[in-house]
Amino acid sequence: MPEAIEQDNTQLRLHEITRALNSGMFVHVRRMLAHMAPCDIALLLESSPHKGRTVLWQLVDSDLQGDILEELSEDVRNGIISQMDPALIAAATEDMDDDDLAEMLRSLPDTIYQEVIGSMASQDRERAALALSYPEESAGAIMNTDTVTIRPDVTLDVVLRYLRLKGELPEGTDELYVVDKDNCFIGAVSLALLLTRSPDLTVRTVMDDHCESIPVTMDESEVAQLFERHNWISAPVVDEHQHLLGRITIDDIVDVIREDAEHSMMSMAGLDDEEDTFAPVVKSTKRRSVWLGVNLITALLAAFVASFFESTLDILPVLAVLNGIVPSMGGVAGSQTLTLVIRGMAVGHINQANQRFLLAKEFAIGALNGVLWALLIAGVVALWKWDFTLGCVIAFAMFMNLLAAGIAGASIPLFLKRLNIDPALAGGVVLTTVTDIVGIFAFLGTATWFLLP
Amino acid sequence: MPEAIEQDNTQLRLHEITRALNSGMFVHVRRMLAHMAPCDIALLLESSPHKGRTVLWQLVDSDLQGDILEELSEDVRNGIISQMDPALIAAATEDMDDDDLAEMLRSLPDTIYQEVIGSMASQDRERAALALSYPEESAGAIMNTDTVTIRPDVTLDVVLRYLRLKGELPEGTDELYVVDKDNCFIGAVSLALLLTRSPDLTVRTVMDDHCESIPVTMDESEVAQLFERHNWISAPVVDEHQHLLGRITIDDIVDVIREDAEHSMMSMAGLDDEEDTFAPVVKSTKRRSVWLGVNLITALLAAFVASFFESTLDILPVLAVLNGIVPSMGGVAGSQTLTLVIRGMAVGHINQANQRFLLAKEFAIGALNGVLWALLIAGVVALWKWDFTLGCVIAFAMFMNLLAAGIAGASIPLFLKRLNIDPALAGGVVLTTVTDIVGIFAFLGTATWFLLP
Repeated sequence: MPEAIEQDNTQLRLHEITRALNSGMFVHVRRMLAHMAPCDIALLLESSPHKGRTVLWQLVDSDLQGDILEELSEDVRNGIISQMDPALIAAATEDMDDDDLAEMLRSLPDTIYQEVIGSMASQDRERAALALSYPEESAGAIMNTDTVTIRPDVTLDVVLRYLRLKGELPEGTDELYVVDKDNCFIGAVSLALLLTRSPDLTVRTVMDDHCESIPVTMDESEVAQLFERHNWISAPVVDEHQHLLGRITIDDIVDVIREDAEHSMMSMAGLDDEEDTFAPVVKSTKRRSVWLGVNLITALLAAFVASFFESTLDILPVLAVLNGIVPSMGGVAGSQTLTLVIRGMAVGHINQANQRFLLAKEFAIGALNGVLWALLIAGVVALWKWDFTLGCVIAFAMFMNLLAAGIAGASIPLFLKRLNIDPALAGGVVLTTVTDIVGIFAFLGTATWFLLP
Repeated sequence: MPEAIEQDNTQLRLHEITRALNSGMFVHVRRMLAHMAPCDIALLLESSPHKGRTVLWQLVDSDLQGDILEELSEDVRNGIISQMDPALIAAATEDMDDDDLAEMLRSLPDTIYQEVIGSMASQDRERAALALSYPEESAGAIMNTDTVTIRPDVTLDVVLRYLRLKGELPEGTDELYVVDKDNCFIGAVSLALLLTRSPDLTVRTVMDDHCESIPVTMDESEVAQLFERHNWISAPVVDEHQHLLGRITIDDIVDVIREDAEHSMMSMAGLDDEEDTFAPVVKSTKRRSVWLGVNLITALLAAFVASFFESTLDILPVLAVLNGIVPSMGGVAGSQTLTLVIRGMAVGHINQANQRFLLAKEFAIGALNGVLWALLIAGVVALWKWDFTLGCVIAFAMFMNLLAAGIAGASIPLFLKRLNIDPALAGGVVLTTVTDIVGIFAFLGTATWFLLP
C-alpha cells in the first residue's frame, strides 16, 4: 500500500537520526540510513554540522554515494569529497548523469581532479570530457545525452516494437526525438501521442515539427525562462547545424530557477549563493569578511563627508542626533527600487524599450515619497526639538535624498549590467554610498547654511 | 522545419512591438500578436507600462485571452481584468486549468467575482467551487482534477486500447493512476512502462505501489520541496482516506519554487512579491510607504537613543562624525546571518535539532568578525584622529555590535517563526533596530565613560 506523506515525516526522521548520532548509536543510524532514499540522505547531510557529515558519510552504503553526491549543493559536496579516496569518488561517478558529473568534476581541486579522472572507466572518462567541453552555465553543461531517437518514415507500430525491445526509457523521457539520416533534429513525438494514435500512421504524420530546439550555447538562465514560459518537461539541444546533441530535463531546470532566484537574494547580502549554512566557522568568517570590508570603506567615506561639518556639529550637537535619519530612509527607499529592478531584470521583464519609462516612474515615486516623508519628518522634528527651521532643513534633506534614492535605485543596476557587473552583488553597496553621501551633504550642508549663527 | 531559438529572438520581437505600439501602428501590432504564443504575449504584457497593457489587450485575439491570463502574475492580471466585461472574463475562464481558475477567482474583487461566477457555464461553476473549497497555498489549491485512472486487474493491452479510444491525454501526463473500486489510490504506471512492458502483463504486476501520494492539505511549499528532492514530474493528491482527488504537475511547482524564492528577497526589501515593476506611480508609492514608515520609526528610535548623549556630542563633535560606522557594520554583518538563516529555513535545512548549533556558530563568527574589525577600525581611527583612546572606544563598540549582530541575525528569524511572523518580512527591521541601538549605546556610552574630561 502506498503511504501518504505525513507533514513532518522527513523532519521527524532527520531529528531521530541526529539524536542517535549524538548518542553514538552508529549501528542504529546505519540501519536507518539503509531505509532512506538518496535525496533524503542528502537533505540530512545538508542539515548537519560539518563534523556530523563526516561521520554520517562513513555510515552510508557506498552504492548510494553517487546518487547522494548528485543531490548535494557544491559547498557541501566538496567538503565530503575532500575526505574521500579518489578511487571511491571515481566509482561513485559511474551512475551519475552527464551534467551532474561535469558539475562535480568542475568543482574539484586540480590534484584530486586528475586522480579521479585517472581512476575512471574509459567510457565514463569520454562522457566526462564531452560534458566538460561545454562552458559552465550553458545549455550544454546541463544537458544529458541519453536521448531516444527515431526516424520519420517508420510507422508508430515499428516504434512501439522498438521500445518494447529496448525494455526501458531514460528517466524523465516524455518525448522521442525524430532525426534525419544526418542526425539533424526535425521534430518530436510525445509518449502520450504514441499511446493514443493509430499504430499504422507514420512518425512524420504525427510528429510535432514546430517543436523548438535549444542551441547548445544558450545561457542556462535563458533556457530556464523558456521552460517556465512554455511549461516544457524536456527539450532537445542542437548544435549550430541542427544536429541533435542531447536533451535538457525539467529537474535540472528547477535547480537553475532555484539558484537564480536565490542568487539575487544571497548576493544582495554579500553571500555566495552556494554558501553552506553549517560550514566551519573560520571558512564562513573569511567569506563574509570581504563584504564587511567593502562596507567599512563606504562607512568611512560617509564619516569622512561628515567630518567636513565637524565645526557645525560642534555648535549644534542636535544635528548629530538627527544625522542618521535621512541616510537611513534613503537607503530603504533605494533598496526597494533596487530589489524590484534586479528582480525585473532576472525574469526578463526589463529591456531597452521600457528602461526610460522605468526611470521616469521611479523618479516620480521618489518625488512623491520625498514630499510625503519630508512633511512628516518636518512635523516630528519641529515638535520634538521645538525648532521650525530645523524641521524645514531636515525636510529638504529628506526630499532630496528620497529623490536621489529613486534615481539611483533604478539606474545603478541598469548601469552595472552594461558594465557586465552583477547588479545583485554590487548594487546595494553603490546605492548606500550614494544615499549616505547625499543624505549627509543635504542635511548637514543645508544646516550649515541656514542654522549657523 | 523546427527552428533553433535565437538568443534574443523574443526580446527583439517584444522591442519591435513596443516600437510599433508607440507609433500607433495598431494593425501591424495586431498582426504580429496573432503569430505569438500566449506565453510570449504574457511576457510582453508584463514588460509593458500599464497604459500600453490596456491598448495591447484590446488587440489580442479573444480566443487566446484565457491562456494569457493563466500566465500573468496576479497584479498584472488584476489590472487587466478590472477593465474587462465580466461576461468576457467568464468566457476566458473556460479553457483554464482548475488551479489557475481558482487562483484568478480568488484575486477578484467581490462584486466582479459575483458577476463572473454568474456568467459562467454551470459545469465551470462547479469546477470553480470545488477548486475554491481548498485553502489557498495548499496542495488542493494547485491541483488539477484531470487524472487518468485505471484498475489494477486489467492487462496492459486493455489499457493501451482504452487510451487509443480516448484519443488524447491531459497535458503533462506522465503516469496513469491505479485506483480500487472505491477510488482509493493504490499505485501508478508511467507511460514509459506502458510502452516498454509486455501487453499481456496486468497493471498490478507492473505498477509502482511504493509511489508516494500527497495529502490534499499539505502546504504548497512542502509539496515543492518533495518534487524538488524526488525529481517528480507529477504526483497524485489524495484525501485523508487515500481517495484520489487529482494531481499536481511540475509546471505549477515551478511557479511555487520561483514565488517562494522571490518572496524572501522581495519581503526583505518590504515589497509585495507580486509587485508589478510597471504599476502606476501612486499605487507603487502607497505600497512602499508602509515599509518606509516602519523604518522611520526605527530611525527615530535610534535618534532618540543618541539624544541621551547630546551633551557628550556637544563636547566631542568627533563622535558625531564617527557615530555611523559601528551601526552600519552591525547592520551588514547581521543581515548576512539573517539572509542565510532565512534561506536555510526556506529550503528546510534548519530544524529543532540543529538550531542550537547554528546559534553557537553564528555567535563564534560574530566574535571572530568582532575581533578582526575592532582591530582594524581602532588602527584607522587612531591614525586618522591621532587619538589612541578614541580608537580603543570604537574598537570595543565594534566588537560588541558584531557579536550582537551574529546573535540577533540567527535568533530573530527563529524567534519570529515561532510567533508565526514571516521572518523575511519582519526580520530586517527588527535586526537593524537591535544593531542600531546596540551600536549607538556601545559607542557613545563607552565614549561618555572614558573620554569625557
